[in-house]
Amino acid sequence: MIKIAIIGYGYWGKNLFRNFISNEKCEVVSVADTDALKLNQLKQNYPSVKTHESFIDILKVEEIDAVVIATPSSTHFKLSKLALDHNKHVLVEKPMTTSFSEAKELLEIARQRDKIILVDHTFLYTPAVQKIKQIISENEIGNLNFFDSTRINLGIFQSDVNVLWDLAAHDISILNYLVPEKPVSVQAIGISHTQNDIENIAYLSIRYNSDFIAHFNCSWSSPVKIRMLLIGGDKKMIAYNDLEPTEKVKIYNSGISLKTDDEKNKFLVDYRTGDLFIPKLENTEALYNLVNEFVSCIQNKRQPLSDANFGLEVVRILDAAQQSIKNRGIEILLTDI
Amino acid sequence: MIKIAIIGYGYWGKNLFRNFISNEKCEVVSVADTDALKLNQLKQNYPSVKTHESFIDILKVEEIDAVVIATPSSTHFKLSKLALDHNKHVLVEKPMTTSFSEAKELLEIARQRDKIILVDHTFLYTPAVQKIKQIISENEIGNLNFFDSTRINLGIFQSDVNVLWDLAAHDISILNYLVPEKPVSVQAIGISHTQNDIENIAYLSIRYNSDFIAHFNCSWSSPVKIRMLLIGGDKKMIAYNDLEPTEKVKIYNSGISLKTDDEKNKFLVDYRTGDLFIPKLENTEALYNLVNEFVSCIQNKRQPLSDANFGLEVVRILDAAQQSIKNRGIEILLTDI
Amino acid sequence: MIKIAIIGYGYWGKNLFRNFISNEKCEVVSVADTDALKLNQLKQNYPSVKTHESFIDILKVEEIDAVVIATPSSTHFKLSKLALDHNKHVLVEKPMTTSFSEAKELLEIARQRDKIILVDHTFLYTPAVQKIKQIISENEIGNLNFFDSTRINLGIFQSDVNVLWDLAAHDISILNYLVPEKPVSVQAIGISHTQNDIENIAYLSIRYNSDFIAHFNCSWSSPVKIRMLLIGGDKKMIAYNDLEPTEKVKIYNSGISLKTDDEKNKFLVDYRTGDLFIPKLENTEALYNLVNEFVSCIQNKRQPLSDANFGLEVVRILDAAQQSIKNRGIEILLTDI
Amino acid sequence: MIKIAIIGYGYWGKNLFRNFISNEKCEVVSVADTDALKLNQLKQNYPSVKTHESFIDILKVEEIDAVVIATPSSTHFKLSKLALDHNKHVLVEKPMTTSFSEAKELLEIARQRDKIILVDHTFLYTPAVQKIKQIISENEIGNLNFFDSTRINLGIFQSDVNVLWDLAAHDISILNYLVPEKPVSVQAIGISHTQNDIENIAYLSIRYNSDFIAHFNCSWSSPVKIRMLLIGGDKKMIAYNDLEPTEKVKIYNSGISLKTDDEKNKFLVDYRTGDLFIPKLENTEALYNLVNEFVSCIQNKRQPLSDANFGLEVVRILDAAQQSIKNRGIEILLTDI
Repeated sequence: MIKIAIIGYGYWGKNLFRNFISNEKCEVVSVADTDALKLNQLKQNYPSVKTHESFIDILKVEEIDAVVIATPSSTHFKLSKLALDHNKHVLVEKPMTTSFSEAKELLEIARQRDKIILVDHTFLYTPAVQKIKQIISENEIGNLNFFDSTRINLGIFQSDVNVLWDLAAHDISILNYLVPEKPVSVQAIGISHTQNDIENIAYLSIRYNSDFIAHFNCSWSSPVKIRMLLIGGDKKMIAYNDLEPTEKVKIYNSGISLKTDDEKNKFLVDYRTGDLFIPKLENTEALYNLVNEFVSCIQNKRQPLSDANFGLEVVRILDAAQQSIKNRGIEILLTDI
Repeated sequence: MIKIAIIGYGYWGKNLFRNFISNEKCEVVSVADTDALKLNQLKQNYPSVKTHESFIDILKVEEIDAVVIATPSSTHFKLSKLALDHNKHVLVEKPMTTSFSEAKELLEIARQRDKIILVDHTFLYTPAVQKIKQIISENEIGNLNFFDSTRINLGIFQSDVNVLWDLAAHDISILNYLVPEKPVSVQAIGISHTQNDIENIAYLSIRYNSDFIAHFNCSWSSPVKIRMLLIGGDKKMIAYNDLEPTEKVKIYNSGISLKTDDEKNKFLVDYRTGDLFIPKLENTEALYNLVNEFVSCIQNKRQPLSDANFGLEVVRILDAAQQSIKNRGIEILLTDI
Repeated sequence: MIKIAIIGYGYWGKNLFRNFISNEKCEVVSVADTDALKLNQLKQNYPSVKTHESFIDILKVEEIDAVVIATPSSTHFKLSKLALDHNKHVLVEKPMTTSFSEAKELLEIARQRDKIILVDHTFLYTPAVQKIKQIISENEIGNLNFFDSTRINLGIFQSDVNVLWDLAAHDISILNYLVPEKPVSVQAIGISHTQNDIENIAYLSIRYNSDFIAHFNCSWSSPVKIRMLLIGGDKKMIAYNDLEPTEKVKIYNSGISLKTDDEKNKFLVDYRTGDLFIPKLENTEALYNLVNEFVSCIQNKRQPLSDANFGLEVVRILDAAQQSIKNRGIEILLTDI
Repeated sequence: MIKIAIIGYGYWGKNLFRNFISNEKCEVVSVADTDALKLNQLKQNYPSVKTHESFIDILKVEEIDAVVIATPSSTHFKLSKLALDHNKHVLVEKPMTTSFSEAKELLEIARQRDKIILVDHTFLYTPAVQKIKQIISENEIGNLNFFDSTRINLGIFQSDVNVLWDLAAHDISILNYLVPEKPVSVQAIGISHTQNDIENIAYLSIRYNSDFIAHFNCSWSSPVKIRMLLIGGDKKMIAYNDLEPTEKVKIYNSGISLKTDDEKNKFLVDYRTGDLFIPKLENTEALYNLVNEFVSCIQNKRQPLSDANFGLEVVRILDAAQQSIKNRGIEILLTDI
């Protein structure tokens, strides 16, 4: 029985709690939160779980194997580091940290202590992204041309990180998971409509050595909610609309054909539309899969799908995007991070 | 009766022809196209219209008052200049030209010859954009925060201009029409998936001195067709979905509220959602309004809504975007154009 | 503190449990279900709640004030009667019973014993239906012309009642709540694609003395899920799409105008389309409101919105529909039931 | 060259004219309409076409091979009869006539005179219905269980026939085309919100000897426009949404499974959802196909897809529906018509 402690019992912490409590190989021993009210509520329904207003208490408990960190982004580094230092495995919400150097440091500590870090890039564990991964792996859509994500709605303004760290983190994780090619540089532009200079709207582009391009449109200020990802290949294209209740992933047998018109010695481009296929997706909750992965990795001493290295590469892009935004959108080479 | 000649009888030329022929104050005297087949077809149905395989024939006809140019973008400058030089008023498809200097030159000639240039920025004449203009003018949506446009589909690859000149031209015209503040600089990133180095996917951002921002996502390679424009104010927000048959313009009584939490000496941001209003739009065709405007301007010797100056400012942004794209997305000041 | 017992801990029973447990004026004392597994699960999380495999145990407990019945339709009558006989208030899932005579009997017993029956016609307590009720009450939509409901999806085939008892029960409750006029007769046609002769597809029409008409399309066998209610008045019309996450209720300023063309001595009909308004709805859960209503009615000794009489009138229509279906769709007068 | 005359140059007449004029095997010789203004307009653009204010003139012209009748429903019989009597082939708008006896009479005359009647059941010639026909023919969806059509919008109130003759005519033609089984009886209920007693809302059900059922919901008074046809089989199901620009036909790999639970000696029903497939449809206009069919039938002396017999069977159902509506929805056997 793996003994789990959870730090942070807010919206996401509750979701993680619910999934850990129903996992038969785990026992949720302790939960910490600064809000005594939330802890009382938890205590009423689950009297056997210990509750703490300070996370420090948790770290000292030797029997705890792993710590789940569901706190604001700016605390991820400090809390993860402390947990590793106390010899715990770590499951930390995305983004792993709020700077590349911090992520790097965590990775090192985890290696030295032989501990697992699983970064909670939840989308990797959704049936939708799993299906898209499978389709791309089977080379059904051909050479990849573009990745275009829009993740906008009227949402909660974070007070410690901008909209890219909050929202693009999801899409960058999907991008890195699906696309094997290494990104080269980023450019980002954003605007803050508050006095704290934290961007609530931002646009991010990522370049590659090939003619593949990735773009992200993120906003906490949109009147309409959109969760749309378009992936274009030269054979087929994919549209992933996360707001669709059942028809989330559409595979278009459409594409661009290049022809040479010998007579006119001219170069022609044509497009082709075809059938559309919407695969049935599994009905499992992403967090259920993620908790299983974490447990299995601890038991089998293997690295998870979204391990420290994976989390680090997402942070690399976000850190570069931050630098670009704060420098009027100049191109930032990812190797310079 | 204003005597009209039309150069170019392709998809858009036919639309213009249809609207001019049904306007009672005009007479379509001549149509020129390089495709004899199209002219024959026209001749059959409208035997009274003269047809020409060379546009030169048209220019010499003295009785012709105005020339309508519906040819590829790269020919707009040359044809418009010739028409002005032959003392004709000009209606030219968007974009007005394919460089700022050319647009500037046309503007000068038109002034000297006291001729009208109407640039066919059709969207300005749609009931949807007219309604949005009215709403913004009445200050219903408050201070403008952002303008976010997505215009993507699987479309015809132009062989003379990139996707911004083709598609963003529409949205930039809407932006300039709706937003009085002057743009300061642009940044654009694009990619070409063909050998001719003409971008089929491109992203454009426009900065202003205020915290207003504009962004454009354009593509000829998207599996799904999207025509979505979001405009955010601090009082209300607008979503304009041009693919909706009847509910094109939605006005959200939603927004962001800024609060200061005195106790915690902290800055808070909250969002508010409210009723949604969908105004009924007039049922008139945009080209019908545009042809009326052209005729009325000729008769009353006044400048049209989308006059040479308006067309020039759109070209200024597109020209700057082109420079940015070809220089790895560096910021281009619009005053440098 | 009102002491509550719940019979039936299935899908809907769990929802009711969750809402009762979080209501401060109630205490959930006991839960009965035939499934020991479900009870164990409940016991783990809520050790203070007593669990029983037989509902009989519950009825005898004197301190229990009210019994919540969330069991199959065919058991509603028997369980409600037993609960009333043991002097408990009753909250029973819709439909109240599976025949008019049974509903009538329950109503009588409740009157004699001065007990409350609240029939769980949940939709009456939704913010959407509350808003529509308000709009109709304020005479915004004029004289009512029609009520057209489609409630279809690929759903669970009930084994004791047909699709009308299961699905139309919702829409009939909405109809009766919104429309003051008394229905006169019903006709229903249905088909069973199973061997048990229970209709999985059925169509129901209800006539009135005026020219108002109501129609219901219900199916457990539709490939697409539709939850659409259209209500037409001579001034405005309403579309209520329950699947829309936020824009559930749309109010169309549209209608039919009748004119007389004196010249041709002819009668003309014209239609008019206008603005569309989408009101913001409260965010409260219907069951939260319903539980509040139940508690308040017990405390204040008043009849609930969906009281026994209301439940009876819904059953009257369903019973008549059943007779019509089984007699090849003949018209059944509601006064004959 | 087949010589064509068109009677009725209204909305649909213009569409037919446009398709006949562009067909190379036809020549549109004459057009008749009571509206001189429309004829003038036509004359301007097509000076070679003769125009007449009375259709009688046309019938006498010997060289005319076929007459196209695009006039109000109530005139179809009289005009078609006259045309046949003058030895012309006939293309008549749907419905063929407004009573079964009239349709029967036309059929007889056509047989005696060896003339073709093509009833303009346009939907049969759409790529969507053609694709559905193919899918059903290949037995992809299994045994047919239901056909459920909704065709409602805020539309023009006809002054000579009710909403079923106007709208259900389309869906009945699709039903009869797709489903080989013979319908047995109909029941229809409708309501008129005008003083002329012509139903603007109506519901029609059709029974079969098997457990297949068809239902039609038609309205000229709906605030929302819906064109949805659901067809259920025991293997797959089809949803045909005619308002979708490209994704009109969806094929659901979903269905109902019947199981017997031996242990409980009980009968169980389960549903299954699977992949969804959206076939690419041809881009041809239905009227283009229909005109081709008419021409080919005249040339090759064969019966068209929607011949007099086909039109007759649609009228049989509509006539029976009319009788049912006017007799409070009683069941009408189709053999009694």
